[in-house]
Amino acid sequence: MQEVITIPKFSYKFSEGDSTRKDLLGGKGAGLCDMTQMGLPVPPGFVITTETCLKYSENDNKLPKGLIDEVKENMKSIEKTTGKTFGGKKNPLLVSVRSGAAISMPGMMDTILNLGLNDSTVIGLAKATGDERFALDAYRRFIALFCRISLGLDDKPFDNLLEGTKKKNDIKYDHELDVASLKTLVEQYKEICKSETGKKFPSDVYSQLELSIKAVFNSWNGKRAIDYRREFGITKEMANGTAVNIVSMVFGNMGGTSATGVLFTRDPATGENALYGEYLVNAQGEDVVAGVRTPNPIIDLKVEMPKLYDELMEVRGILEKHYSEVQDFEFTIEKEKLHILQTRNGKMGPNALVKTSVDMAEEGVLTKENAILRVKPEVIEQLMHSRIDPKNKLEPIAAGIAASPGAATGNAVFDADEAERRGKLAQNVILVRTETKPEDIHGFFTARGILTSRGGKTSHAAVVARAMGKPCVCGAEEMVIDELAKIVTVGDLRIMENDIITIDGSTGNIYIGEVEKIEPEISEELFTLLNWADKFRTLGVRVNADTADDAKVALNFGAEGVGLCRTERMFNLPDRLPVMQQLVMATTREERDVAIKKLLPMQKGDFKEIFRVMQNRPVTIRLLDPPLHEFLPRSEEISRELETLKELKAVIQKIGTTQNLTKVMDEKMFEHLSKVDKMLEDIVSIGDEGHIDALIESKMVGLERISTFSEVNPMLGHRGVRIGITYPEIYEMQIKAILEAVAEVSSEGITIHPEIMVPQVCTGQELKWVHDMAKKTCEEIEAQFGVKVKYKFGTMMEVVRACMRAGKLAEIASFFSFGTNDLTQATFSFSREDAENKFLPLYNERKILQDNPFEVLDVKGVGRLMLIAIKWGRKTREDLKIGICGEHAGEPRSIKFCNSAGIDYVSCSPYRVPIARLAAAHAEIEGDTFDLLYD
Amino acid sequence: MQEVITIPKFSYKFSEGDSTRKDLLGGKGAGLCDMTQMGLPVPPGFVITTETCLKYSENDNKLPKGLIDEVKENMKSIEKTTGKTFGGKKNPLLVSVRSGAAISMPGMMDTILNLGLNDSTVIGLAKATGDERFALDAYRRFIALFCRISLGLDDKPFDNLLEGTKKKNDIKYDHELDVASLKTLVEQYKEICKSETGKKFPSDVYSQLELSIKAVFNSWNGKRAIDYRREFGITKEMANGTAVNIVSMVFGNMGGTSATGVLFTRDPATGENALYGEYLVNAQGEDVVAGVRTPNPIIDLKVEMPKLYDELMEVRGILEKHYSEVQDFEFTIEKEKLHILQTRNGKMGPNALVKTSVDMAEEGVLTKENAILRVKPEVIEQLMHSRIDPKNKLEPIAAGIAASPGAATGNAVFDADEAERRGKLAQNVILVRTETKPEDIHGFFTARGILTSRGGKTSHAAVVARAMGKPCVCGAEEMVIDELAKIVTVGDLRIMENDIITIDGSTGNIYIGEVEKIEPEISEELFTLLNWADKFRTLGVRVNADTADDAKVALNFGAEGVGLCRTERMFNLPDRLPVMQQLVMATTREERDVAIKKLLPMQKGDFKEIFRVMQNRPVTIRLLDPPLHEFLPRSEEISRELETLKELKAVIQKIGTTQNLTKVMDEKMFEHLSKVDKMLEDIVSIGDEGHIDALIESKMVGLERISTFSEVNPMLGHRGVRIGITYPEIYEMQIKAILEAVAEVSSEGITIHPEIMVPQVCTGQELKWVHDMAKKTCEEIEAQFGVKVKYKFGTMMEVVRACMRAGKLAEIASFFSFGTNDLTQATFSFSREDAENKFLPLYNERKILQDNPFEVLDVKGVGRLMLIAIKWGRKTREDLKIGICGEHAGEPRSIKFCNSAGIDYVSCSPYRVPIARLAAAHAEIEGDTFDLLYD
Repeated sequence: MQEVITIPKFSYKFSEGDSTRKDLLGGKGAGLCDMTQMGLPVPPGFVITTETCLKYSENDNKLPKGLIDEVKENMKSIEKTTGKTFGGKKNPLLVSVRSGAAISMPGMMDTILNLGLNDSTVIGLAKATGDERFALDAYRRFIALFCRISLGLDDKPFDNLLEGTKKKNDIKYDHELDVASLKTLVEQYKEICKSETGKKFPSDVYSQLELSIKAVFNSWNGKRAIDYRREFGITKEMANGTAVNIVSMVFGNMGGTSATGVLFTRDPATGENALYGEYLVNAQGEDVVAGVRTPNPIIDLKVEMPKLYDELMEVRGILEKHYSEVQDFEFTIEKEKLHILQTRNGKMGPNALVKTSVDMAEEGVLTKENAILRVKPEVIEQLMHSRIDPKNKLEPIAAGIAASPGAATGNAVFDADEAERRGKLAQNVILVRTETKPEDIHGFFTARGILTSRGGKTSHAAVVARAMGKPCVCGAEEMVIDELAKIVTVGDLRIMENDIITIDGSTGNIYIGEVEKIEPEISEELFTLLNWADKFRTLGVRVNADTADDAKVALNFGAEGVGLCRTERMFNLPDRLPVMQQLVMATTREERDVAIKKLLPMQKGDFKEIFRVMQNRPVTIRLLDPPLHEFLPRSEEISRELETLKELKAVIQKIGTTQNLTKVMDEKMFEHLSKVDKMLEDIVSIGDEGHIDALIESKMVGLERISTFSEVNPMLGHRGVRIGITYPEIYEMQIKAILEAVAEVSSEGITIHPEIMVPQVCTGQELKWVHDMAKKTCEEIEAQFGVKVKYKFGTMMEVVRACMRAGKLAEIASFFSFGTNDLTQATFSFSREDAENKFLPLYNERKILQDNPFEVLDVKGVGRLMLIAIKWGRKTREDLKIGICGEHAGEPRSIKFCNSAGIDYVSCSPYRVPIARLAAAHAEIEGDTFDLLYD
Repeated sequence: MQEVITIPKFSYKFSEGDSTRKDLLGGKGAGLCDMTQMGLPVPPGFVITTETCLKYSENDNKLPKGLIDEVKENMKSIEKTTGKTFGGKKNPLLVSVRSGAAISMPGMMDTILNLGLNDSTVIGLAKATGDERFALDAYRRFIALFCRISLGLDDKPFDNLLEGTKKKNDIKYDHELDVASLKTLVEQYKEICKSETGKKFPSDVYSQLELSIKAVFNSWNGKRAIDYRREFGITKEMANGTAVNIVSMVFGNMGGTSATGVLFTRDPATGENALYGEYLVNAQGEDVVAGVRTPNPIIDLKVEMPKLYDELMEVRGILEKHYSEVQDFEFTIEKEKLHILQTRNGKMGPNALVKTSVDMAEEGVLTKENAILRVKPEVIEQLMHSRIDPKNKLEPIAAGIAASPGAATGNAVFDADEAERRGKLAQNVILVRTETKPEDIHGFFTARGILTSRGGKTSHAAVVARAMGKPCVCGAEEMVIDELAKIVTVGDLRIMENDIITIDGSTGNIYIGEVEKIEPEISEELFTLLNWADKFRTLGVRVNADTADDAKVALNFGAEGVGLCRTERMFNLPDRLPVMQQLVMATTREERDVAIKKLLPMQKGDFKEIFRVMQNRPVTIRLLDPPLHEFLPRSEEISRELETLKELKAVIQKIGTTQNLTKVMDEKMFEHLSKVDKMLEDIVSIGDEGHIDALIESKMVGLERISTFSEVNPMLGHRGVRIGITYPEIYEMQIKAILEAVAEVSSEGITIHPEIMVPQVCTGQELKWVHDMAKKTCEEIEAQFGVKVKYKFGTMMEVVRACMRAGKLAEIASFFSFGTNDLTQATFSFSREDAENKFLPLYNERKILQDNPFEVLDVKGVGRLMLIAIKWGRKTREDLKIGICGEHAGEPRSIKFCNSAGIDYVSCSPYRVPIARLAAAHAEIEGDTFDLLYD
């Protein structure tokens, strides 16, 4: 019996290939098959599969047996269709040989054009085009390209020859070369080929084709391509091997009835529903891109070649309908005949993406689900901040950590008072500090952006800036900032006060001068899209808002409640910080009570404002969290003031009076004059040494007190509920302020849903302690106001032990809110600031970690801990409400996890609310992709 | 039909009571019943139950109906046995009324003696004793006691009267009062009673008895008793209500044939197997304790009353056999008749406890299990350190944190060099520093103890001292230490260099001068006991040892291997630290390599020594863990040196030469002269300013470099495997040193079991990274040495995420070692130093936390995390070896958990190895008491 041999199919004609098999045909090949089968005028051709490429590699870079026979058969078929002959002298068939993997790797692999030219076919081409110069030029280019790509020769000798010829003829552009020069060049090129390879340039067109196929296959494993795939994370599952597209050449440069162009089915920048693109008459594809001639907008074709314009409009409709996606396609008109050479999904700008999604959904081209899925949440992020114009060519002078996105330009200002003063005068300022402290907060409100040389993404500057939606670059360690002298030094460069600088919080770049920016645009379409998203999502979206203003912004962005109101932020306002400092510096309960009494009405007022904004939406208020020393001035600052005071005292003793003091000061005996301005005025006005002694004494007492607050690891120190328990009067005051605010605003006829939340809880006893306090306070207030005051009571889940004790905590807490910032730090034992400054970049680079866990929730570690907590918590209390309020709450991949994990709501900063709304819809539409079964 | 009424039994005669029911009869009552039923000569009496006490309380402090009838019946029974009559005029029966709860609460509740005296019975007593003075004195005391306890009167008026009488008669002691005075006093006392209560002193003896029973019951809910129970954690389950013991009085003061004494069946201090105690002839029980007369050692009784001595010896044998425990018992001889009044388990000193356990087991009185269980592991701890003699009456001048147990006396010395110098001269020194740094380590070796004013239980001083088994008191914040001036100020007191001080690392106390100490004694019996323990335990016990010396000590203590060898400790030796600093300060790989090359042979040498000591036992070596900046000098120190150098420079410039510099220095222009001694010598000898400039420059460069290492939260910073990955050459060197040491020592014919352990691992990728490095290094060494080099590879489990990823980690790690110090910090989000200094004491006080989780493993949080890790780890690798090497590894309750959790071994500091051995045996014998089912 005879053995049955199945002949493997190495290639497919465009009319045959299964266009759903991008994996097999590559993106370009599949598109060409697709269009051919749709009936669009694609030049005939065929595609050699990616499998063949793999076989070639596995087979020690030998073409599999039978491939060339198949190729020849396919070529015959093209000859038949086109009426041209491959290698023919009269009407020669030329082809392009192009790579095309399943995923586009632009510029990474090689393309050969005009294959099929040799000494005899070039004459045929000259005749067919009626342009000998063109044919010779094509030939010259083909030889050089072929030698470089298919034979692996260096292109220098070819370039040198070309440049030499141009110089000799005193011409500038290639197209100015005359026939004679081109003929000589062709001969010289062939000589190089011979001397370098020891063989003649192959005139046999099938040899040309075979070598070129091999070259494309080889390029898949070339260093450039491998690097590219690693860089962009392209795995074998995503693309394995390249296909080879062999397409008959068409020419847009065959006179006035020929043309070529690149089009988008809609405007990729604005999303406008109109054919968009450019073309050139009597030109080759590359001319459109090269910019030697200025192409015309496509609308001109309507006049120039109305019939062909109509044909293109028809193609546009067919393509969009077929792909349900804006297409970016290339065409060539050869002697009034339209050819489509390529199509792919169009890359849209963020606004265009949103507009086209909504438009196409409304046109019925897309379902609403697909319209939503088409816009990645990250796209919204780009829309929510002003950006450096991508056309900007200015080089940054330094870079720091991209801590809060958006770009800002303004005058450099070195202290918060000055930032505030000038900000209020509507001047644009960038606050520049080595690092910021809560007492700088008033400067944040008025500054356009914040720049620091120290601290990471959780530094005070970064966190506050993000919450305010202000651009921030922090930890720009190359910059040496001298706040006293008001000078930034970066290498040889100096930035003085008032110099204009631009920071880009999306990239971390810092520029001198103003850089062109693109301002955020929130279009009608975006609002439509987000409203659609709301219909699909099940995850709630709340906002982290500390003030009524924040809450108002967030409400406009669609927030459904406040998930995190950080009460400590309120203490940082300029009128409150001194009171807070009084509280912290107090050494007795009595002293503390004095401060507490002042703080109570302030806090209550804040809460009332927020309640009035949020109305019947839930407002979760977190009791004081940060360590108390965060409210104190830095001890170095006081030390410096102390030093200056001592110097001043010495001067006063020397001159014997304070009368001449200002004069002495004017003589600039002191470098840090401005820092002591106020103290100096006082001293001069009081006019004796006693005052300066008193000042010195008070600074010294202050220094000592501050030193008692110093901690080795503040992240794991005396903070959160630990403060609430050691200084119960603070939490008592806060709870009182909340519940009195509820009672008072309720009397305005508004139903309030306050939620009291305790930070840093690690044991049920802590929670019980605060809960008892809240119950007692509530009873008192109910008695005092004569109304029922309702509130929910819950806990932050940001300490690992809380997750382990979730079942116990849920006995008291009616809601959990995961604080994934702190939880991530504790789970990894990474201090965020230290990690991001010291080793995280390297960890990402070496793939020890795939992502920065402070940006993308670590599902396998932190997520697992959360799942355990959720399981145990709900075992105790079935209807336990669970939220997340770390920065991850606004990050799409993390939101996807939250959706799968059964979390009820995310709470993020105001400017991320729209992102979260969209991401939550994506998560719900896409369904679970996490394996949540862990035990 | 008649209703059957069950009459509740309120009381039991000593001949009836069930002695196993301590809960019902109280400890004292059960003992009296027990002894009576054993046939020992207990004076007749009965016990009213604790239940009756509860009924009394529940019944609004009314005695339950029927009780008094029962009491009367019992009294009749006593009268019958003794032939005396309660309230009788001739031979009156007197009784004592004593409280007695299930748990002894010494001095917390009340006792009444000689009840039954009144104006007529006192005459009968005088006749019966032939001593009117004694009878009247007893009567006077009884009235005062009864008034105070049963009637609740203030005892001041009674005392005043007594004092007044004594003054009037010009006498000093109570017993000098004559009959007339006593008679007057009795009348006056009764007057007080009448005027204060409005009623006559009750002469009815049953009224006396009823009121006294009530008084004892009342005392159970008295403030003193409630406070006591709270303080010592006595719950209702442990003791609920007090019993009342009513016992007929016997008198040891009825002449030369009467006596009284307190005895132990064995010596409670030494454990010697001999009757131990004291007695007095013709005396009352309280006289023995009061110290007015000096009692005789019991052996004297053998001569004085040989028959009664023999009787006591017999009682001793009966008691020990019955209780299987050393007894502490009281006796009275009334006219040659022996009475036993009380027995209870004897409180033994630690040595005695061990010796008696072993002796009793060998005598067959105890099983070996019970002999082991009888010695709590904490007892061993007391034996492993010298202690302040409990008889010491000196007051401490200050107290810090008890960081490493034991007491030490020596001259105060303020720097490590001096400590080393004088320590080598065999002088006793205490190293006193504000805080210590690795460069002080050479001072630790020679110092007797360490005292710091800053830092908690994980400070450098504490950790190193514990590891070395040296006493350490740290964080004594009342002390202001001026290291430059070499003065400690505590309030008004000053300690200068060379002053003798004593520190007690077990209590944190600090004394001026020498305080008597008790040196540790490790007896033969302890070794026997531990060997028995080894037979019972299943948990392995290894040691945390960083040097061969540590390993040797631990081997003697019974360590079965090294569970943790911290390689960084080796870098802190004086000859190595400079090289390590060179490594850290290096800015290029090349500079680092120079240092690495020097370190390799040093490390290898260390490992070889340890391997030779441990022979075929496993040795787990942890790769470098601490952040690199721990090896650097403090920047404040360099700043200070820099300042001094600048001053020096100014002086040199002023005097124009270095020639007179020493003279200038002698004139004490500089306060910190000694700190610059060496620099000064150099400068003078070189004789120009250039050198000082170079010094200044180098200090400034150093300062800058050090500043790049500063971290916000060093506990969560750049350390452990993160260093291994960022500076791979360090781990490479360490692995090479380990494996070369293995190869070389193996060639000596010793089989080594090295285990390489990676610290701070949070993801499988980190572990794989180091594992690949180890595999490669091992192959190279095998090739080089031509031998097979075997090693185990494992990971520390000290990061929460590692616990969550245990299944993944176990794919690479063949063993886990829980680092519960760090794991506890991360689980609680408590920085240990900050927590122990700031809020942990309050947390314990308010019962937010029961224990300090850094001392006792937090089973519910950290333990749960460990169980998850163990489960997932063993799911991947069934034979995964699991250890624990945090400080908890030497703490008995934590060891109990480890035993239940399926951990294979604990690894603790050398001096805790014996404790761990015993605790492990306890855990195994006692069995599981943890509920380990968590999902």
